[in-house]
Amino acid sequence: MTRQVDVVNAQGVHEQVSIPAERALTVYVDKREIVTLMTLGAHPELLVLGYLRNQRLVSQVSEVASITVDWDAGEGGAGVAAVKTYQGIADIQARTEKRVVTTGCGQGSVFGDLMDEIDTLALPDAHISQARLYGVLNAIRLQESTYKSAGSVHGCALFSGEDMQIFVEDVGRHNAIDTIAGWMWMHGVSADADSIFYTTGRLTSEMVMKSAQMGVAVVVSRSGITQMGYDLAARLQLCTVGRAMNKHFLCYTAAERLQLDPALAKATVHGVAAA
Amino acid sequence: MTRQVDVVNAQGVHEQVSIPAERALTVYVDKREIVTLMTLGAHPELLVLGYLRNQRLVSQVSEVASITVDWDAGEGGAGVAAVKTYQGIADIQARTEKRVVTTGCGQGSVFGDLMDEIDTLALPDAHISQARLYGVLNAIRLQESTYKSAGSVHGCALFSGEDMQIFVEDVGRHNAIDTIAGWMWMHGVSADADSIFYTTGRLTSEMVMKSAQMGVAVVVSRSGITQMGYDLAARLQLCTVGRAMNKHFLCYTAAERLQLDPALAKATVHGVAAA
Repeated sequence: MTRQVDVVNAQGVHEQVSIPAERALTVYVDKREIVTLMTLGAHPELLVLGYLRNQRLVSQVSEVASITVDWDAGEGGAGVAAVKTYQGIADIQARTEKRVVTTGCGQGSVFGDLMDEIDTLALPDAHISQARLYGVLNAIRLQESTYKSAGSVHGCALFSGEDMQIFVEDVGRHNAIDTIAGWMWMHGVSADADSIFYTTGRLTSEMVMKSAQMGVAVVVSRSGITQMGYDLAARLQLCTVGRAMNKHFLCYTAAERLQLDPALAKATVHGVAAA
Repeated sequence: MTRQVDVVNAQGVHEQVSIPAERALTVYVDKREIVTLMTLGAHPELLVLGYLRNQRLVSQVSEVASITVDWDAGEGGAGVAAVKTYQGIADIQARTEKRVVTTGCGQGSVFGDLMDEIDTLALPDAHISQARLYGVLNAIRLQESTYKSAGSVHGCALFSGEDMQIFVEDVGRHNAIDTIAGWMWMHGVSADADSIFYTTGRLTSEMVMKSAQMGVAVVVSRSGITQMGYDLAARLQLCTVGRAMNKHFLCYTAAERLQLDPALAKATVHGVAAA
């Protein structure tokens, strides 16, 4: 998932560094071109499945007959993911026409539609203790990753309590969360009151919305929040915890879901270096 | 450009923090809806103009009769930017239909078209000395910014030598670079051999491509590079300098444009703290 390149540093010395791989993957649904995704390429089928799910192009995994990925089939060196559905997708032209360029990435639903959908979403009665939050942060810290070796990627993870169910990295963070959505569909995993979503990226409106659509009520990030992310999370009563690293965090919204135990913030955790 | 929100920290204490403002802005061209951009909202007209330029929807600024922004006019609380052109945009439906979701954001041109365009771009015979590079990094360090007060935004700047011509922040970094492109058009500014583009974001394919389209041959970033960004920059012989902060940097591509003076990496700069 990484490539070595030769660089020159400030001392004028050549060195080898790793950069993340990145491949173009053009998605066709029933032979109609939908989108080209730029991806690290680790889980292309799950990525495409999750993309279709999060774009609301497919409403049940059983609608999809197959996803076939050929990295050498596209124009200009792009790969191709050919999706076959059993019944076709109704109104696919209209539904892939409009677009919104949201903060983090451009995969968003149409803005008005997204806003309409908020009030239909019901989140589980989820709570997270400060101890569990620290457990999540520690699991992320221990995870071996492309980020550690090459940087320049975003990571996402789905937790059940402190157990990491899946960890995905990609060059675009929306790819990472879409891949998790695809994985959940493939494996019949539903979110519940113990589900926690972790992202290295900012808590933007899309991250909050996608988490809510997956039925996850607690989202944790190493980064901060944007206003639209904040407003959406507040309206959804989705608990957002940002700037989370080591013992530090800020709970932006739905603090009633966070069971504080401030004494833990002062205790020493072995092996955790200051960031 | 920021809003105060109440948060709870790890000590269980409430505090006020700033988060960046974020507004939805739906762009209509000759009454046709094109896209909804999420933006900090500081320079909406320049953003829209630069968006149209970088999307290749408009090829001359003189084609645009007016851009009128009304923050209260759209659905669901979105603002509206109404663009009038003198002649209309030919094939606008076809040209806004296909989309590519690139690494950082989804504003990209169609992938194949983008690749075709590379070899038509000619960059100036630009060079940058290590002293000038440090001057650029120092100017960025001194810049007052929303990032400093609230975080969660990306910044971009255009330099002529060590002189910062314009500095723009936005919640999406493509908005920031598009705003700079709009500013250049509005003010008749062209890039030349002294032009340097700075971004806080990663050196993705789109950042490299947009810089090249603006005629800028040297791009500096605080972050790293992706493979597609690397490959494009290498092919364009565009000089990419990443991980640039204080005295540190890595030159990834077109190192022949960088005039090294490694002795400078060892000198003390007053007031520069280690990152």
